[in-house]
Amino acid sequence: MPVSLIGIDADDTLWHNETVFRMTHQRFNELLGEFAPPEDIEATLNQTEQRNIAIYGYGAKGFTLSMIETALEVSGGRVSGAVMREIMNAGKDMMRHPVAPLPGVEAALSELAQRGKLILITKGDLFHQESKLAASGLGSRFSGVEIVSEKTPDIYQRIFQRHGGTPDRALMAGNSMRSDVLPMLEAGGYAAYVPYPLIWSHEAADPPGNHPRFRELPALADLCIWIDEIQYAGKS
Amino acid sequence: MPVSLIGIDADDTLWHNETVFRMTHQRFNELLGEFAPPEDIEATLNQTEQRNIAIYGYGAKGFTLSMIETALEVSGGRVSGAVMREIMNAGKDMMRHPVAPLPGVEAALSELAQRGKLILITKGDLFHQESKLAASGLGSRFSGVEIVSEKTPDIYQRIFQRHGGTPDRALMAGNSMRSDVLPMLEAGGYAAYVPYPLIWSHEAADPPGNHPRFRELPALADLCIWIDEIQYAGKS
Repeated sequence: MPVSLIGIDADDTLWHNETVFRMTHQRFNELLGEFAPPEDIEATLNQTEQRNIAIYGYGAKGFTLSMIETALEVSGGRVSGAVMREIMNAGKDMMRHPVAPLPGVEAALSELAQRGKLILITKGDLFHQESKLAASGLGSRFSGVEIVSEKTPDIYQRIFQRHGGTPDRALMAGNSMRSDVLPMLEAGGYAAYVPYPLIWSHEAADPPGNHPRFRELPALADLCIWIDEIQYAGKS
Repeated sequence: MPVSLIGIDADDTLWHNETVFRMTHQRFNELLGEFAPPEDIEATLNQTEQRNIAIYGYGAKGFTLSMIETALEVSGGRVSGAVMREIMNAGKDMMRHPVAPLPGVEAALSELAQRGKLILITKGDLFHQESKLAASGLGSRFSGVEIVSEKTPDIYQRIFQRHGGTPDRALMAGNSMRSDVLPMLEAGGYAAYVPYPLIWSHEAADPPGNHPRFRELPALADLCIWIDEIQYAGKS
Protein backbone atom coordinates (compact mmCIF):
# COMPACT_ATOMS: atom_id res chain seq x y z
CA MET A 1 0.00 0.00 0.00
CA PRO A 2 1.73 3.23 -1.05
CA VAL A 3 2.14 6.16 1.31
CA SER A 4 0.40 9.37 0.23
CA LEU A 5 0.29 11.42 3.43
CA ILE A 6 3.39 12.26 5.46
CA GLY A 7 2.86 13.58 8.98
CA ILE A 8 5.80 15.37 10.55
CA ASP A 9 6.25 16.41 14.17
CA ALA A 10 7.56 19.92 14.91
CA ASP A 11 9.39 20.33 18.25
CA ASP A 12 12.80 18.64 18.07
CA THR A 13 11.99 17.25 14.64
CA LEU A 14 11.90 20.50 12.64
CA TRP A 15 13.51 22.82 15.19
CA HIS A 16 15.14 22.78 18.64
CA ASN A 17 12.78 22.67 21.60
CA GLU A 18 14.09 20.48 24.41
CA THR A 19 17.37 22.42 24.34
CA VAL A 20 15.41 25.60 25.11
CA PHE A 21 13.60 23.84 27.98
CA ARG A 22 16.91 22.54 29.39
CA MET A 23 18.44 26.02 29.26
CA THR A 24 15.42 27.33 31.13
CA HIS A 25 15.69 24.53 33.72
CA GLN A 26 19.31 25.51 34.33
CA ARG A 27 18.44 29.19 34.71
CA PHE A 28 15.62 28.22 37.09
CA ASN A 29 17.92 26.04 39.22
CA GLU A 30 20.42 28.89 39.52
CA LEU A 31 17.72 31.37 40.50
CA LEU A 32 16.60 29.11 43.36
CA GLY A 33 20.12 28.00 44.32
CA GLU A 34 19.88 29.58 47.78
CA PHE A 35 16.91 27.38 48.71
CA ALA A 36 17.78 23.88 47.49
CA PRO A 37 20.31 21.84 45.47
CA PRO A 38 19.56 21.49 41.72
CA GLU A 39 18.51 17.82 41.98
CA ASP A 40 15.82 18.62 44.57
CA ILE A 41 14.53 21.56 42.51
CA GLU A 42 14.45 19.33 39.42
CA ALA A 43 12.55 16.61 41.24
CA THR A 44 9.94 19.07 42.56
CA LEU A 45 9.59 20.80 39.19
CA ASN A 46 9.12 17.45 37.47
CA GLN A 47 6.42 16.35 39.94
CA THR A 48 4.66 19.71 39.69
CA GLU A 49 4.73 19.59 35.90
CA GLN A 50 3.36 16.03 35.71
CA ARG A 51 0.59 16.89 38.16
CA ASN A 52 -0.32 20.06 36.27
CA ILE A 53 -0.53 18.51 32.80
CA ALA A 54 -4.10 17.48 33.63
CA ILE A 55 -4.95 21.15 34.30
CA TYR A 56 -2.69 23.08 31.91
CA GLY A 57 -1.94 20.61 29.11
CA TYR A 58 1.43 20.81 27.30
CA GLY A 59 3.50 23.85 26.45
CA ALA A 60 5.63 26.71 27.66
CA LYS A 61 2.87 28.65 29.47
CA GLY A 62 1.91 25.69 31.63
CA PHE A 63 5.61 25.04 32.22
CA THR A 64 6.11 28.65 33.37
CA LEU A 65 3.21 28.31 35.80
CA SER A 66 4.76 25.07 37.09
CA MET A 67 8.09 26.87 37.60
CA ILE A 68 6.32 29.51 39.70
CA GLU A 69 4.54 26.88 41.76
CA THR A 70 7.84 25.03 42.28
CA ALA A 71 9.61 28.24 43.31
CA LEU A 72 6.96 28.85 45.98
CA GLU A 73 7.28 25.27 47.17
CA VAL A 74 11.06 24.87 47.38
CA SER A 75 11.46 28.30 49.00
CA GLY A 76 8.63 27.75 51.48
CA GLY A 77 7.04 30.90 50.07
CA ARG A 78 10.16 33.00 50.77
CA VAL A 79 11.20 33.50 47.13
CA SER A 80 11.76 37.21 46.42
CA GLY A 81 9.81 39.37 43.98
CA ALA A 82 13.02 39.88 42.00
CA VAL A 83 13.50 36.13 41.51
CA MET A 84 9.82 35.75 40.59
CA ARG A 85 10.26 38.39 37.92
CA GLU A 86 13.29 36.50 36.58
CA ILE A 87 11.25 33.29 36.39
CA MET A 88 8.51 35.14 34.50
CA ASN A 89 11.16 36.49 32.12
CA ALA A 90 12.65 33.03 31.64
CA GLY A 91 9.17 31.85 30.61
CA LYS A 92 8.72 34.74 28.20
CA ASP A 93 12.16 34.12 26.71
CA MET A 94 11.07 30.56 25.93
CA MET A 95 7.98 31.87 24.17
CA ARG A 96 10.06 34.36 22.17
CA HIS A 97 13.05 32.11 21.53
CA PRO A 98 14.29 32.32 17.91
CA VAL A 99 13.22 29.36 15.80
CA ALA A 100 15.48 28.03 13.07
CA PRO A 101 15.05 24.78 11.13
CA LEU A 102 17.39 21.97 12.23
CA PRO A 103 20.24 21.21 9.79
CA GLY A 104 19.04 19.35 6.71
CA VAL A 105 15.34 19.86 7.45
CA GLU A 106 14.58 22.22 4.58
CA ALA A 107 16.21 19.97 1.98
CA ALA A 108 14.47 16.91 3.46
CA LEU A 109 11.06 18.62 3.26
CA SER A 110 11.65 19.45 -0.42
CA GLU A 111 12.44 15.80 -1.14
CA LEU A 112 9.52 14.53 0.95
CA ALA A 113 7.03 16.89 -0.74
CA GLN A 114 7.70 14.97 -3.99
CA ARG A 115 6.55 11.76 -2.29
CA GLY A 116 3.33 12.81 -0.54
CA LYS A 117 1.28 15.56 1.03
CA LEU A 118 3.11 16.97 4.05
CA ILE A 119 1.12 17.58 7.22
CA LEU A 120 2.68 19.15 10.29
CA ILE A 121 1.27 17.44 13.39
CA THR A 122 2.29 18.88 16.71
CA LYS A 123 0.93 18.99 20.21
CA GLY A 124 1.13 21.79 22.72
CA ASP A 125 0.11 25.37 22.93
CA LEU A 126 -1.84 26.52 19.86
CA PHE A 127 -0.63 30.12 19.88
CA HIS A 128 3.01 29.24 20.60
CA GLN A 129 3.18 26.48 17.98
CA GLU A 130 1.68 28.80 15.35
CA SER A 131 4.18 31.50 16.33
CA LYS A 132 7.07 29.05 16.04
CA LEU A 133 5.92 27.79 12.66
CA ALA A 134 5.68 31.38 11.40
CA ALA A 135 9.14 32.21 12.77
CA SER A 136 10.65 29.06 11.22
CA GLY A 137 9.64 30.09 7.71
CA LEU A 138 8.54 26.49 7.05
CA GLY A 139 4.78 27.11 7.01
CA SER A 140 4.42 27.10 3.22
CA ARG A 141 6.06 23.67 2.98
CA PHE A 142 3.02 21.97 4.52
CA SER A 143 -0.37 21.21 2.96
CA GLY A 144 -1.88 21.13 6.42
CA VAL A 145 -1.05 22.11 9.97
CA GLU A 146 -2.66 20.22 12.84
CA ILE A 147 -2.04 21.42 16.38
CA VAL A 148 -3.57 18.98 18.83
CA SER A 149 -3.74 18.69 22.60
CA GLU A 150 -2.62 15.03 22.59
CA LYS A 151 -1.43 12.51 19.99
CA THR A 152 -3.58 9.39 20.17
CA PRO A 153 -4.44 6.68 17.59
CA ASP A 154 -7.90 8.24 17.28
CA ILE A 155 -6.49 11.70 16.64
CA TYR A 156 -4.15 10.35 13.94
CA GLN A 157 -7.09 8.56 12.36
CA ARG A 158 -9.12 11.76 12.23
CA ILE A 159 -6.26 13.90 10.92
CA PHE A 160 -5.41 11.60 8.02
CA GLN A 161 -9.08 11.18 7.14
CA ARG A 162 -9.54 14.92 7.13
CA HIS A 163 -6.70 15.15 4.61
CA GLY A 164 -8.29 12.62 2.32
CA GLY A 165 -6.51 9.44 3.38
CA THR A 166 -6.31 6.68 5.94
CA PRO A 167 -3.57 5.81 8.44
CA ASP A 168 -2.55 2.69 6.51
CA ARG A 169 -1.49 4.95 3.64
CA ALA A 170 0.12 7.48 5.94
CA LEU A 171 3.43 7.86 7.72
CA MET A 172 4.30 9.81 10.86
CA ALA A 173 7.85 10.97 11.62
CA GLY A 174 9.04 12.48 14.87
CA ASN A 175 11.34 12.30 17.86
CA SER A 176 8.85 11.02 20.43
CA MET A 177 8.35 7.27 20.76
CA ARG A 178 5.35 7.95 23.00
CA SER A 179 3.56 10.50 20.80
CA ASP A 180 4.78 10.09 17.23
CA VAL A 181 5.51 6.36 16.96
CA LEU A 182 3.38 4.14 19.21
CA PRO A 183 -0.08 5.71 18.65
CA MET A 184 0.56 5.96 14.89
CA LEU A 185 1.41 2.25 14.71
CA GLU A 186 -1.69 1.52 16.76
CA ALA A 187 -3.74 3.52 14.24
CA GLY A 188 -2.41 1.20 11.52
CA GLY A 189 0.08 3.58 9.95
CA TYR A 190 3.82 3.75 9.33
CA ALA A 191 5.99 5.47 11.92
CA ALA A 192 9.56 6.72 11.77
CA TYR A 193 11.46 7.52 14.94
CA VAL A 194 13.96 10.30 14.29
CA PRO A 195 15.63 10.86 17.65
CA TYR A 196 16.82 14.22 18.94
CA PRO A 197 19.83 14.19 21.30
CA LEU A 198 17.66 15.22 24.28
CA ILE A 199 14.28 13.85 25.27
CA TRP A 200 11.82 15.03 27.91
CA SER A 201 11.26 12.06 30.24
CA HIS A 202 7.49 12.36 29.68
CA GLU A 203 7.91 11.52 25.97
CA ALA A 204 10.22 8.56 26.39
CA ALA A 205 8.84 5.03 25.83
CA ASP A 206 10.09 1.62 24.80
CA PRO A 207 10.47 1.10 21.05
CA PRO A 208 7.93 -1.20 19.36
CA GLY A 209 10.59 -3.81 18.53
CA ASN A 210 10.65 -5.52 15.16
CA HIS A 211 7.48 -3.97 13.75
CA PRO A 212 7.07 -4.08 9.94
CA ARG A 213 5.75 -0.53 9.84
CA PHE A 214 8.37 1.00 12.14
CA ARG A 215 11.84 2.34 11.38
CA GLU A 216 14.39 4.28 13.40
CA LEU A 217 16.19 6.79 11.23
CA PRO A 218 19.21 8.99 11.98
CA ALA A 219 17.72 12.05 10.23
CA LEU A 220 14.58 13.32 8.50
CA ALA A 221 16.44 13.16 5.18
CA ASP A 222 16.60 9.36 5.49
CA LEU A 223 12.84 9.20 5.45
CA CYS A 224 12.79 9.50 1.65
CA ILE A 225 14.71 6.24 1.27
CA TRP A 226 12.29 4.36 3.49
CA ILE A 227 9.26 5.80 1.70
CA ASP A 228 10.77 4.76 -1.64
CA GLU A 229 11.22 1.24 -0.25
CA ILE A 230 7.58 1.17 0.91
CA GLN A 231 6.34 2.40 -2.48
CA TYR A 232 8.54 -0.12 -4.30
CA ALA A 233 7.35 -3.01 -2.10
CA GLY A 234 3.76 -1.91 -2.72
CA LYS A 235 4.27 -2.16 -6.49
CA SER A 236 6.13 -5.45 -6.56
CA MET B 1 -28.04 31.84 -1.31
CA PRO B 2 -29.07 29.33 1.37
CA VAL B 3 -27.01 28.79 4.52
CA SER B 4 -25.56 25.29 4.93
CA LEU B 5 -22.85 25.79 7.56
CA ILE B 6 -23.51 27.33 10.97
CA GLY B 7 -20.49 28.45 12.99
CA ILE B 8 -21.07 28.97 16.69
CA ASP B 9 -18.77 30.62 19.20
CA ALA B 10 -18.23 28.91 22.57
CA ASP B 11 -17.28 31.23 25.47
CA ASP B 12 -20.29 33.32 26.52
CA THR B 13 -22.32 31.91 23.64
CA LEU B 14 -22.61 28.27 24.75
CA TRP B 15 -21.46 28.66 28.36
CA HIS B 16 -20.42 31.31 30.88
CA ASN B 17 -16.87 32.61 30.58
CA GLU B 18 -16.61 36.34 31.26
CA THR B 19 -18.43 35.81 34.58
CA VAL B 20 -15.64 33.43 35.64
CA PHE B 21 -13.01 36.00 34.61
CA ARG B 22 -14.82 38.77 36.53
CA MET B 23 -15.02 36.63 39.65
CA THR B 24 -11.28 35.98 39.34
CA HIS B 25 -10.61 39.70 38.88
CA GLN B 26 -12.49 40.41 42.09
CA ARG B 27 -10.60 37.74 44.02
CA PHE B 28 -7.34 39.14 42.61
CA ASN B 29 -8.21 42.71 43.65
CA GLU B 30 -8.99 41.56 47.17
CA LEU B 31 -5.73 39.62 47.43
CA LEU B 32 -3.75 42.74 46.51
CA GLY B 33 -5.95 45.15 48.50
CA GLU B 34 -3.09 46.11 50.85
CA PHE B 35 -1.01 47.45 47.94
CA ALA B 36 -3.40 49.46 45.77
CA PRO B 37 -7.08 50.36 45.24
CA PRO B 38 -9.04 48.05 42.92
CA GLU B 39 -9.19 50.55 40.05
CA ASP B 40 -5.39 50.85 39.94
CA ILE B 41 -4.96 47.08 40.07
CA GLU B 42 -7.52 46.70 37.27
CA ALA B 43 -5.76 49.29 35.13
CA THR B 44 -2.36 47.61 35.57
CA LEU B 45 -3.80 44.14 34.96
CA ASN B 46 -5.50 45.33 31.80
CA GLN B 47 -2.31 46.93 30.44
CA THR B 48 -0.27 43.84 31.32
CA GLU B 49 -2.79 41.55 29.64
CA GLN B 50 -2.94 43.64 26.45
CA ARG B 51 0.85 43.78 26.26
CA ASN B 52 1.19 40.04 26.85
CA ILE B 53 -1.35 38.91 24.22
CA ALA B 54 1.44 39.17 21.65
CA ILE B 55 3.51 36.69 23.69
CA TYR B 56 0.90 34.43 25.32
CA GLY B 57 -2.14 34.66 23.02
CA TYR B 58 -5.63 34.33 24.54
CA GLY B 59 -6.78 32.18 27.40
CA ALA B 60 -6.72 31.48 31.12
CA LYS B 61 -3.05 30.43 31.35
CA GLY B 62 -1.81 33.67 29.79
CA PHE B 63 -4.25 35.55 32.04
CA THR B 64 -2.85 33.81 35.14
CA LEU B 65 0.69 34.76 34.10
CA SER B 66 -0.50 38.36 33.63
CA MET B 67 -2.03 38.33 37.13
CA ILE B 68 1.33 37.23 38.57
CA GLU B 69 3.18 39.93 36.64
CA THR B 70 0.64 42.53 37.84
CA ALA B 71 0.95 41.36 41.45
CA LEU B 72 4.73 41.85 41.29
CA GLU B 73 4.24 45.28 39.75
CA VAL B 74 1.57 46.78 42.02
CA SER B 75 3.31 45.43 45.15
CA GLY B 76 6.76 46.61 44.06
CA GLY B 77 7.88 42.98 44.39
CA ARG B 78 6.71 42.77 48.03
CA VAL B 79 3.77 40.41 47.43
CA SER B 80 3.96 37.43 49.82
CA GLY B 81 4.39 33.80 48.87
CA ALA B 82 0.98 33.08 50.40
CA VAL B 83 -0.75 35.62 48.14
CA MET B 84 1.17 34.27 45.14
CA ARG B 85 -0.12 30.80 45.93
CA GLU B 86 -3.66 32.18 46.10
CA ILE B 87 -3.25 33.80 42.69
CA MET B 88 -2.00 30.49 41.26
CA ASN B 89 -5.02 28.76 42.79
CA ALA B 90 -7.37 31.40 41.35
CA GLY B 91 -5.89 30.62 37.93
CA LYS B 92 -6.30 26.88 38.40
CA ASP B 93 -9.88 27.37 39.59
CA MET B 94 -10.63 29.14 36.32
CA MET B 95 -9.19 26.21 34.38
CA ARG B 96 -11.26 23.73 36.42
CA HIS B 97 -14.43 25.80 36.66
CA PRO B 98 -17.56 23.72 36.00
CA VAL B 99 -19.01 24.23 32.55
CA ALA B 100 -22.74 24.13 31.98
CA PRO B 101 -24.60 25.12 28.81
CA LEU B 102 -26.37 28.50 29.02
CA PRO B 103 -30.18 28.31 29.33
CA GLY B 104 -31.83 27.40 26.04
CA VAL B 105 -28.58 26.45 24.32
CA GLU B 106 -29.21 22.71 24.05
CA ALA B 107 -32.68 23.17 22.57
CA ALA B 108 -31.37 25.82 20.18
CA LEU B 109 -28.58 23.49 18.96
CA SER B 110 -31.13 20.74 18.25
CA GLU B 111 -33.19 23.14 16.15
CA LEU B 112 -30.14 24.56 14.37
CA ALA B 113 -28.79 21.09 13.52
CA GLN B 114 -31.90 20.62 11.34
CA ARG B 115 -30.89 23.68 9.32
CA GLY B 116 -27.18 23.12 8.67
CA LYS B 117 -23.92 21.55 9.74
CA LEU B 118 -22.89 22.95 13.12
CA ILE B 119 -19.26 23.94 13.62
CA LEU B 120 -17.95 25.18 16.94
CA ILE B 121 -15.45 27.96 16.30
CA THR B 122 -13.63 29.32 19.31
CA LYS B 123 -10.37 31.05 20.01
CA GLY B 124 -8.10 30.68 22.99
CA ASP B 125 -6.25 27.91 24.67
CA LEU B 126 -6.50 24.58 22.80
CA PHE B 127 -6.35 22.33 25.86
CA HIS B 128 -8.69 24.44 27.97
CA GLN B 129 -11.28 24.86 25.21
CA GLU B 130 -11.27 21.09 24.55
CA SER B 131 -11.64 20.45 28.29
CA LYS B 132 -14.58 22.85 28.50
CA LEU B 133 -16.29 21.31 25.49
CA ALA B 134 -15.92 17.86 27.04
CA ALA B 135 -17.25 19.11 30.38
CA SER B 136 -20.22 20.83 28.72
CA GLY B 137 -21.44 17.59 27.17
CA LEU B 138 -22.12 19.48 23.92
CA GLY B 139 -19.30 17.95 21.86
CA SER B 140 -21.46 15.46 19.98
CA ARG B 141 -23.77 18.25 18.78
CA PHE B 142 -21.10 19.58 16.42
CA SER B 143 -19.90 18.20 13.08
CA GLY B 144 -16.63 20.03 13.55
CA VAL B 145 -14.67 21.80 16.26
CA GLU B 146 -12.21 24.51 15.28
CA ILE B 147 -10.05 26.06 17.96
CA VAL B 148 -8.07 28.94 16.52
CA SER B 149 -5.60 31.48 17.86
CA GLU B 150 -7.43 34.43 16.26
CA LYS B 151 -10.68 34.96 14.33
CA THR B 152 -9.91 36.74 11.07
CA PRO B 153 -11.72 36.83 7.67
CA ASP B 154 -9.02 34.55 6.29
CA ILE B 155 -9.45 32.02 9.09
CA TYR B 156 -13.24 31.96 8.60
CA GLN B 157 -12.68 31.44 4.86
CA ARG B 158 -10.41 28.46 5.52
CA ILE B 159 -12.67 26.89 8.15
CA PHE B 160 -15.80 26.96 6.00
CA GLN B 161 -13.88 25.69 2.97
CA ARG B 162 -12.49 22.84 5.01
CA HIS B 163 -16.06 21.88 5.90
CA GLY B 164 -17.13 21.82 2.28
CA GLY B 165 -18.62 25.30 1.91
CA THR B 166 -17.89 28.96 1.38
CA PRO B 167 -18.48 31.92 3.73
CA ASP B 168 -21.33 33.27 1.58
CA ARG B 169 -23.28 30.11 2.43
CA ALA B 170 -22.23 30.17 6.07
CA LEU B 171 -23.34 31.96 9.22
CA MET B 172 -21.39 32.75 12.35
CA ALA B 173 -23.09 33.41 15.71
CA GLY B 174 -21.41 34.71 18.83
CA ASN B 175 -21.18 37.34 21.51
CA SER B 176 -18.13 39.21 20.21
CA MET B 177 -18.63 41.97 17.68
CA ARG B 178 -14.87 42.06 17.14
CA SER B 179 -14.27 38.33 16.63
CA ASP B 180 -17.56 36.72 15.62
CA VAL B 181 -19.31 39.45 13.63
CA LEU B 182 -16.97 41.88 11.85
CA PRO B 183 -14.42 39.41 10.36
CA MET B 184 -17.23 37.04 9.28
CA LEU B 185 -19.01 39.86 7.43
CA GLU B 186 -15.68 40.81 5.85
CA ALA B 187 -15.28 37.21 4.70
CA GLY B 188 -18.63 37.55 2.90
CA GLY B 189 -20.72 35.52 5.33
CA TYR B 190 -23.72 36.05 7.57
CA ALA B 191 -23.12 37.05 11.18
CA ALA B 192 -25.42 37.06 14.20
CA TYR B 193 -24.50 39.01 17.31
CA VAL B 194 -25.93 37.28 20.39
CA PRO B 195 -24.80 39.48 23.29
CA TYR B 196 -23.86 38.19 26.73
CA PRO B 197 -24.49 40.55 29.67
CA LEU B 198 -20.73 41.07 30.20
CA ILE B 199 -18.08 41.72 27.59
CA TRP B 200 -14.29 41.84 27.87
CA SER B 201 -13.22 45.32 26.67
CA HIS B 202 -10.83 43.67 24.18
CA GLU B 203 -13.75 42.08 22.33
CA ALA B 204 -15.97 45.16 22.14
CA ALA B 205 -16.35 46.94 18.79
CA ASP B 206 -18.87 49.14 17.00
CA PRO B 207 -21.69 47.23 15.30
CA PRO B 208 -21.62 47.12 11.49
CA GLY B 209 -24.79 49.25 11.17
CA ASN B 210 -27.47 48.39 8.68
CA HIS B 211 -25.69 45.48 7.00
CA PRO B 212 -27.87 43.03 5.01
CA ARG B 213 -26.00 40.01 6.36
CA PHE B 214 -25.95 41.10 10.00
CA ARG B 215 -28.53 40.62 12.75
CA GLU B 216 -28.50 41.21 16.49
CA LEU B 217 -30.47 38.53 18.29
CA PRO B 218 -31.50 38.24 21.95
CA ALA B 219 -30.70 34.51 22.16
CA LEU B 220 -29.21 31.62 20.17
CA ALA B 221 -32.73 30.17 19.83
CA ASP B 222 -33.73 33.16 17.68
CA LEU B 223 -31.10 32.19 15.12
CA CYS B 224 -33.43 29.56 13.63
CA ILE B 225 -35.96 32.23 12.66
CA TRP B 226 -33.33 34.31 10.90
CA ILE B 227 -31.92 31.28 9.06
CA ASP B 228 -35.44 30.37 7.91
CA GLU B 229 -35.86 33.92 6.60
CA ILE B 230 -32.56 33.68 4.71
CA GLN B 231 -33.50 30.30 3.21
CA TYR B 232 -36.95 31.61 2.26
CA ALA B 233 -35.52 34.76 0.62
CA GLY B 234 -33.04 32.58 -1.28
CA LYS B 235 -35.88 30.51 -2.74
CA SER B 236 -38.18 33.37 -3.73
